Amino acid sequence: MTETPLDATHDPALRSWVPGADGHADFPIQNLPLGIFSSAGAGKRGGVAIGDHVLDLPAALAAGLFAGEAARAAEAASARTLNGFLALGAAPRRALRARLSEILALGSPLDSPLDSPLGSDDRARAEPCLLPLADCTLHLPAQVGDYTDFYVGIHHATNIGKVFRPDNPLLPNYKYVPIGYHGRASSLRVSGTDVRRPKGQLKAPEAEAPRFAPCERLDYELELGIWVGPGNELGEPVPVGEAASHVAGYCLLNDWSARDIQAWEYQPLGPFLSKNFASTLSPWVVTPEALAPFRIAQPPRPEGDPAPLPYLLDEADQRTGALDLELEVLLSTARMREQGLPPHRLSLSNARHMYWTVAQMLAHHTSNGCNLQPGDLLGSGTISAPDPTGFGSLLETTRGGKEPVALPSGESRRFLEDGDEVTLRARARRDGTAPIGFGECRAIILPAR
Amino acid sequence: MTETPLDATHDPALRSWVPGADGHADFPIQNLPLGIFSSAGAGKRGGVAIGDHVLDLPAALAAGLFAGEAARAAEAASARTLNGFLALGAAPRRALRARLSEILALGSPLDSPLDSPLGSDDRARAEPCLLPLADCTLHLPAQVGDYTDFYVGIHHATNIGKVFRPDNPLLPNYKYVPIGYHGRASSLRVSGTDVRRPKGQLKAPEAEAPRFAPCERLDYELELGIWVGPGNELGEPVPVGEAASHVAGYCLLNDWSARDIQAWEYQPLGPFLSKNFASTLSPWVVTPEALAPFRIAQPPRPEGDPAPLPYLLDEADQRTGALDLELEVLLSTARMREQGLPPHRLSLSNARHMYWTVAQMLAHHTSNGCNLQPGDLLGSGTISAPDPTGFGSLLETTRGGKEPVALPSGESRRFLEDGDEVTLRARARRDGTAPIGFGECRAIILPAR
Repeated sequence: MTETPLDATHDPALRSWVPGADGHADFPIQNLPLGIFSSAGAGKRGGVAIGDHVLDLPAALAAGLFAGEAARAAEAASARTLNGFLALGAAPRRALRARLSEILALGSPLDSPLDSPLGSDDRARAEPCLLPLADCTLHLPAQVGDYTDFYVGIHHATNIGKVFRPDNPLLPNYKYVPIGYHGRASSLRVSGTDVRRPKGQLKAPEAEAPRFAPCERLDYELELGIWVGPGNELGEPVPVGEAASHVAGYCLLNDWSARDIQAWEYQPLGPFLSKNFASTLSPWVVTPEALAPFRIAQPPRPEGDPAPLPYLLDEADQRTGALDLELEVLLSTARMREQGLPPHRLSLSNARHMYWTVAQMLAHHTSNGCNLQPGDLLGSGTISAPDPTGFGSLLETTRGGKEPVALPSGESRRFLEDGDEVTLRARARRDGTAPIGFGECRAIILPAR
Repeated sequence: MTETPLDATHDPALRSWVPGADGHADFPIQNLPLGIFSSAGAGKRGGVAIGDHVLDLPAALAAGLFAGEAARAAEAASARTLNGFLALGAAPRRALRARLSEILALGSPLDSPLDSPLGSDDRARAEPCLLPLADCTLHLPAQVGDYTDFYVGIHHATNIGKVFRPDNPLLPNYKYVPIGYHGRASSLRVSGTDVRRPKGQLKAPEAEAPRFAPCERLDYELELGIWVGPGNELGEPVPVGEAASHVAGYCLLNDWSARDIQAWEYQPLGPFLSKNFASTLSPWVVTPEALAPFRIAQPPRPEGDPAPLPYLLDEADQRTGALDLELEVLLSTARMREQGLPPHRLSLSNARHMYWTVAQMLAHHTSNGCNLQPGDLLGSGTISAPDPTGFGSLLETTRGGKEPVALPSGESRRFLEDGDEVTLRARARRDGTAPIGFGECRAIILPAR
């Protein structure tokens, strides 16, 4: 595994001259995620989130703010999608990060003329390239070729297994195989896009036949999304020790799930219409560099669990391949919004509850020769904490709808109702680091047609 | 359902001036499938198969052979992929077909000056646009956004169910739900591309733990591929009565399967690495118009089977939504090729053994609002005949490897061995029509790396 060194861009003392950036919950100068945005009169292009602003990358390029490797990366990130940028790999991405940090930093040694070969008027040249985030429309950062969803949240797999297979919650392959399946790329949507309640075949256990009706057990799933960077050729597996170099970034993923459709359709080939009506992504690509301070050792497997097979085992990956990243689900009903009540936290989990690392997922995915391409998306599967306050879906939190959740508005929820707004958030924080976040992954449920 | 009228292009008496086209097993003038090809010194572009030749569409356009709707279609089909052509829908596709038939026909009333507004020198202008197929490289006809594989071959589902679930071969949802799942788009390859034997986790039933090794139960699957034409917006289902208008063509699909990897990995989320190492497609898009003479009524469901739910039921689709299309699997081992033996037929099946029509598959796929896009690919799932001479996979033919198939070379096969070449073919023939075929879907197995 390629470990990302910490450098001056991670310094928690680093401050930015961009108003509101310092102490920003998601986008302080230590983060610098990339995304695709558009603004009044100008089309889709790449940008960098800093505080409540976006640095317009093509504008910054035109202002002469980049040279060398950083310019190459900024140019790739100036297109209508980030696919070309994701394909570049770590070196140009790091060069761009270093230069962005230099440009946006306030009073750090970085912005002295000595360190900045392009001159010390960075701020003067960069300021006109900043747009308020509120004036921008955000888009999916890349055109997703293939979307694969994994199932590495072991507490989720156990909880959901209990609902579908009470006597057999965790199947015998779970601790050997990073279970995954192919999802739908065409229905991925960026945060803020409404989600239409799907119709489908529903069959109550006691009913003789299914009926076609709006989903009655609509659910969210709290997932980490992984953006694939450089791809591999068909027939050429990526060894687990090299897998990290194929990851270009992270996001939040809400893998909306129609539990009633799922229960009836999923055998024997897996979930299909219960999932592919929509999946929501947060717009910002948070880079592996930004997350480097939050790398932790993969938690030891419980006593008695088998060791991963050799093709999934890398010493460095075991030592630093997991992430300490808080993951949160918030619910706001239409009535709560009318009453001016803030969103209600349904769950607080952490990416450390993944049974397999991202490198293991990616190595497994390519172990048969399957080719990944820049802009492919991997989902972690629902990441639930071991205890109910951190369950990553309503199916788990309400125990299959049997124990409704009480809300501050006096309402309760077994599953999602029309008008409900679900927001996912992520926050990385550790002692001695500047905390960073992912921005929101948010959508409102519209009634079925 | 939109029914395709038969017209002069289907006349079995129609002949072509292109040498070898008349009586050609696959590409007589009544077929006129489209594909993407390249030739020495010239890049990817659209073409039409006629006999053992390709009509170069951009060249034919430049020669002034098309006008109006036909020109619009020919222009869309002249790009590096057929996605734009697939998106057009039936009217321009029919106009192009009518005009191609006119250009390539010999001595038919169609090529008289009266019917041909562009003049009667069609042949003189078209002849320089013909290239021998043997001098062309064929490519995937479209960039596939999403690939969905169905499971509508009921005899296959029953046979394979017996292997994986002896007591429960056909699950209770099968006769209500056109079962499908998402496949991998990135590893789709055109006929003629070698397939590397995958490695993966294999676990014998009696073994305590799996091991990582080359697949020992490699198999083919005989499938019909369906090219999606005009798409639908997310959230807007396609009614079954309109589904046929979203289909732009057909091909052959070999959904290679690693049965040992599949048996261990597939629960609970379905097949993944057992399938996504490669799927092989025949290069030519055979249009709905070319197949119109081979439409038949959907065979009545066996006594006692439930009627399809109303959202899957359309009277016209039931009357003409099935296809009478022979589907064949041929095997040629390395030794057979050395000995000069012809390929051995392993199976002869027919597309009429699909439990659901293509319109039902497409309507089901979108019934939850899932959006399809031009160039998406649907697979039928393996189409087995009811009897063993028409089983569509070795898993069925050899009863899970227990009854090897004897080959003319003296060899036998339980599953595929390195050097084996599998060829799929399709042939439509009915009294009073000109038979047409699909061309080959062919690949050789390379040893694992």
